[in-house]
Amino acid sequence: MSHNTFGHLFRVTTWGESHGPAIGCVVDGCPPRLALSEADIQVWLDKRRPGQSRFTTQRQEPDQVKILSGVFEGRTTGTPIQLLIENVDQRSKDYGDIKDKFRPGHADYAYMAKYGIRDYRGGGRSSARETACRVAAGAVARAVLGPGIRIRGALVQIGPHAVDRARWDWTAVDANPFFCPDPVKAAEWETYLDGVRKAGSSAGAVIEVVAEGVPAGWGAPVYGKLDADLAGAMMSINAVKGVEIGAGFAAASLSGEQNADEMEPGNEGRPRFRANNAGGVLGGISTGQDIVLRFAVKPTSSILSPRDTIDRDGHATSILTKGRHDPCVGIRAVPVGEAMMACVLADHLMRHRAQVG
Amino acid sequence: MSHNTFGHLFRVTTWGESHGPAIGCVVDGCPPRLALSEADIQVWLDKRRPGQSRFTTQRQEPDQVKILSGVFEGRTTGTPIQLLIENVDQRSKDYGDIKDKFRPGHADYAYMAKYGIRDYRGGGRSSARETACRVAAGAVARAVLGPGIRIRGALVQIGPHAVDRARWDWTAVDANPFFCPDPVKAAEWETYLDGVRKAGSSAGAVIEVVAEGVPAGWGAPVYGKLDADLAGAMMSINAVKGVEIGAGFAAASLSGEQNADEMEPGNEGRPRFRANNAGGVLGGISTGQDIVLRFAVKPTSSILSPRDTIDRDGHATSILTKGRHDPCVGIRAVPVGEAMMACVLADHLMRHRAQVG
Amino acid sequence: MSHNTFGHLFRVTTWGESHGPAIGCVVDGCPPRLALSEADIQVWLDKRRPGQSRFTTQRQEPDQVKILSGVFEGRTTGTPIQLLIENVDQRSKDYGDIKDKFRPGHADYAYMAKYGIRDYRGGGRSSARETACRVAAGAVARAVLGPGIRIRGALVQIGPHAVDRARWDWTAVDANPFFCPDPVKAAEWETYLDGVRKAGSSAGAVIEVVAEGVPAGWGAPVYGKLDADLAGAMMSINAVKGVEIGAGFAAASLSGEQNADEMEPGNEGRPRFRANNAGGVLGGISTGQDIVLRFAVKPTSSILSPRDTIDRDGHATSILTKGRHDPCVGIRAVPVGEAMMACVLADHLMRHRAQVG
Amino acid sequence: MSHNTFGHLFRVTTWGESHGPAIGCVVDGCPPRLALSEADIQVWLDKRRPGQSRFTTQRQEPDQVKILSGVFEGRTTGTPIQLLIENVDQRSKDYGDIKDKFRPGHADYAYMAKYGIRDYRGGGRSSARETACRVAAGAVARAVLGPGIRIRGALVQIGPHAVDRARWDWTAVDANPFFCPDPVKAAEWETYLDGVRKAGSSAGAVIEVVAEGVPAGWGAPVYGKLDADLAGAMMSINAVKGVEIGAGFAAASLSGEQNADEMEPGNEGRPRFRANNAGGVLGGISTGQDIVLRFAVKPTSSILSPRDTIDRDGHATSILTKGRHDPCVGIRAVPVGEAMMACVLADHLMRHRAQVG
Repeated sequence: MSHNTFGHLFRVTTWGESHGPAIGCVVDGCPPRLALSEADIQVWLDKRRPGQSRFTTQRQEPDQVKILSGVFEGRTTGTPIQLLIENVDQRSKDYGDIKDKFRPGHADYAYMAKYGIRDYRGGGRSSARETACRVAAGAVARAVLGPGIRIRGALVQIGPHAVDRARWDWTAVDANPFFCPDPVKAAEWETYLDGVRKAGSSAGAVIEVVAEGVPAGWGAPVYGKLDADLAGAMMSINAVKGVEIGAGFAAASLSGEQNADEMEPGNEGRPRFRANNAGGVLGGISTGQDIVLRFAVKPTSSILSPRDTIDRDGHATSILTKGRHDPCVGIRAVPVGEAMMACVLADHLMRHRAQVG
Repeated sequence: MSHNTFGHLFRVTTWGESHGPAIGCVVDGCPPRLALSEADIQVWLDKRRPGQSRFTTQRQEPDQVKILSGVFEGRTTGTPIQLLIENVDQRSKDYGDIKDKFRPGHADYAYMAKYGIRDYRGGGRSSARETACRVAAGAVARAVLGPGIRIRGALVQIGPHAVDRARWDWTAVDANPFFCPDPVKAAEWETYLDGVRKAGSSAGAVIEVVAEGVPAGWGAPVYGKLDADLAGAMMSINAVKGVEIGAGFAAASLSGEQNADEMEPGNEGRPRFRANNAGGVLGGISTGQDIVLRFAVKPTSSILSPRDTIDRDGHATSILTKGRHDPCVGIRAVPVGEAMMACVLADHLMRHRAQVG
Repeated sequence: MSHNTFGHLFRVTTWGESHGPAIGCVVDGCPPRLALSEADIQVWLDKRRPGQSRFTTQRQEPDQVKILSGVFEGRTTGTPIQLLIENVDQRSKDYGDIKDKFRPGHADYAYMAKYGIRDYRGGGRSSARETACRVAAGAVARAVLGPGIRIRGALVQIGPHAVDRARWDWTAVDANPFFCPDPVKAAEWETYLDGVRKAGSSAGAVIEVVAEGVPAGWGAPVYGKLDADLAGAMMSINAVKGVEIGAGFAAASLSGEQNADEMEPGNEGRPRFRANNAGGVLGGISTGQDIVLRFAVKPTSSILSPRDTIDRDGHATSILTKGRHDPCVGIRAVPVGEAMMACVLADHLMRHRAQVG
Repeated sequence: MSHNTFGHLFRVTTWGESHGPAIGCVVDGCPPRLALSEADIQVWLDKRRPGQSRFTTQRQEPDQVKILSGVFEGRTTGTPIQLLIENVDQRSKDYGDIKDKFRPGHADYAYMAKYGIRDYRGGGRSSARETACRVAAGAVARAVLGPGIRIRGALVQIGPHAVDRARWDWTAVDANPFFCPDPVKAAEWETYLDGVRKAGSSAGAVIEVVAEGVPAGWGAPVYGKLDADLAGAMMSINAVKGVEIGAGFAAASLSGEQNADEMEPGNEGRPRFRANNAGGVLGGISTGQDIVLRFAVKPTSSILSPRDTIDRDGHATSILTKGRHDPCVGIRAVPVGEAMMACVLADHLMRHRAQVG
């Protein structure tokens, strides 16, 4: 990863600011002859699109993607694919107050300390709007991976309220505004998050992403580990503060006997694992089990109660962020996490094929 | 990160297997004219060296580093620095049993699935012995960072037993065999881990690494985020299953008011933050606060009770890993985590200087 | 360099096909706070723009550049700069004949052999139209380099007709349609190239690019050599078949005494070189002398006389390329070569600053 | 390419100075299960080894390579391969005079200007001794390419004396001390170079490298062009001042009709080309023809007549380089050029396989 590009062979470079004329990305290295249309991409962007419930920002962005290159007569040509999304609902006036003040928990101060200049409108480059490009690139990555690999995400915790895994139901995920796999918990979250929203506050979340169908052997020792790349990819998503694979932090409390997933003969000479504490990765290489990871998203830093801060001159002041914000930015992080999983896997498919054939 | 190299400008490439003649690394891109001797590196290797207490592997490796290039008359020249460590205590006979069987929780099966061949002796390339090279490279990175940046690590949890942060004492870290900052807990761990060791079992751990003195402005949006690179770097360490920054996973349970660290005027126009839930990074860029991260290490998969598995032919069998192993591999991960922090920071120092001057 | 990106720290990723809706590039890693406007870029694009004389293609493209990101209130912000140029004069009907036939000397067959698919309209991705993006990126690179570094190119040979270096006059370069520094030769070329054009034939060329003001010390051993990067950059330009630095191929015929540029004391402790056979680079590192290189461009492969070839089914056929083409594509390669020089130097400025400060 | 590493997937990182204890390289990304022994590598090192005739340096280096990692029971494992060559014949006393003086035509001044420090012994990192590592890596690359691809180099010019291509005989190349394919010219060169040697002077050279058996489709638009990577690779070799592909600089003088290689139906649906002005590459992608390139090597800068220069304090002085030097360093560049061709092709084999399968 380098600045605004990620991936080695399936390479995605994103560009654009929240309130500029457009955002977009170049997907380079994509294999040729894959069927790809704007509709194939739009379906995933629509999952992430804001304004679809009262629990996400009310900014109205159609997020219509245009393919400007790299696709000919409905098929990828192997040349770079430029995907462009116009910004249509910039209300820069909402952000006048943040021109000279640094919002706590936001990147305002850090950008200024680094660059000595910042496009403060809507957070500029640090806006979560950038993640639309990840989702668009993720749709291309899914085309690379093909139908044999299924990537799904779900929200497993909002604030302190976690789902009950005994009630896990993938079909529920698309039936509530939270991508929640536990229908009972989804109903509780609705009440909880209405309270958060009305209080002008915000809540954090934990997202789980699962990839099924990944064959054994993807990934690479020792700095190209599949889980290392996934950790970096997820941590690069706005507001993410932690990433774990398989048993994750809980593995620290397990004994060696509990943690090491035993094997028995499975289909076609492959092992059947009796558990998946590894999360599908051992030594940085996939084992053929499901790839399972989770990441934690902090509560949206834009809240309606005034917060102490400093201004550009270093003076004490306070700020109250009006604008239009997600009370729980973690919700829309679900399709983003899926997209990052897809991109990392597509890259590793190609890296594996390169070395091992 | 790509295969066996990490870093963009401060680049480290490691090589070598557990039971080959030697291991080593090339550090490329190092600034010139820095004072650097083998002794400067050896001090950090000695912290990680096995066999120093009954709680780590009894393999006797002096881990004497040799500088083969890139240093002239005690100073770096700007050309690649080759660091070589000979392996002297390979007892390959200990590993005869693993030639044809896949140890649960180890990378044996994954390597075979990927490459169709593996150096099974001592785990070959997947052995934690590789981390000696990280520690050596980390010593060079510390020379790049200079005395103004202090990087320290500590073990904050073994098995289910966490330290009491109210008793945190950095001076205690070097006074017990666990790098434990809580003297009371260190005594308890001794008893606990003796039990684990005698039972032929193993325990996981959580390591915390703190970097003080990092100026605001290091890191880069959006795929070169400082925390994204740190997450990838830590997850690339053997046996790590989770990484978190600042409040980490706990941030998911905080409210927006609790999480966003308020600012007030500090020294020289810089802010003073009232808390550090961010872990020193906002928008992927350092804020001038301490960089604080934690990572979880799973229990050593080599344990003395037999475990079910399959052999190379796909048949059911069981394996009992004798050899010489760490009952808690997380202990020696402390200097490794420090080293990775140092390498990532050195890389970002140079990346920042490149772009912003 | 990797696929459609070049540069390490000053990174340019181009995208787009000759007859798609647009072409463009992302410039990533640009330092912040540099003054940059569309007009600053347009001036260089106008130098390369087709249709400005009868000696270049008659395709009418205004090549109006739009800055979509990375610039705020007239200054770079340090975030990726997306530059977009719409295609307005695609006449795809001109290319119907090449849909199924491979034009000799063109990339048609090679693309098909690689990808099994190609956007044949106007050569698709292999069209020299892509070089407009290089020129746009080069304008940004010039902003990075600042006014102290001057990069100029000139055409020194068309067909077998070379300039007389005794008549070299930089001011003449902008006074004729060939970027020719020899006014006498420019007049001769006019007659010569009219003959070529009327015969439906084409001519090759040699371009020289000179960078003045580059300080000693840029570049890096041994695979990041300044001249190695320049050679790769120039050879990546369409139709280029050779690159040389300083004395170049002629150096093979010199004696050691003739070739090694002697030094004497110059200004401020720096050497004054008595000659520049090195072309300003020794050991891959700049010496403070002018960087001088030349590259050869083959004659345009699109010519009006029928040529034998095969079709997609492998059958013998012949093709006559009508369309609108440059009788000497080398002319417009002058601003392209300048741009590539600028990009490579901007990258090395940053790489040098990263390592040495 | 970045500093001391080249290649993307077949990655070679070299290290070491002329008069340090050893030099070496790490080859990362190599496919697994390839047969590879030290003898397989030694055969190529022996071609480049100094002291084999009176026309190369009399430094006595056995250049015995050791494989320290990445090979198990005679086969590559897919993990990094460390190749080490000890320096045994350093006579640093020969170089006392160059400690404080900058040799004209050498990298002495450039290194000092860049780094402010240099290992002056034998040129340190800038010594052509580094090329032994390239040759070692090239041997691994040949194993990747397999027996179907044949890479051969020849010296086609020494000083102003070029071979007669009508007498080209590949079997002659190994029958004279110059790798000369023209037996008549080889005899003339012997006389010529004896004169140069006895005069304490030196001569330049031109090397041609040909790769047969490369399938159509390797390479990539537009900055990953096969010829762009080859040009960068060759220009990175010490003393190289120019690179050309196919007709090269001569293409500038051809007409479009002469230059564009016509095609007719060949074997298995592939074209048969009537000429190879392209040098086997169109649009940056191989066509299935032989890859043909040439590069020019300047005369050795170490000569026995005194040359004017400056010292470290900027004062005028003169220097006479005694030491042990090649009167024509271009001779030993033949196996180096072959090795670089092999490495670039191995990298592109893997890059092509990654994207297209």
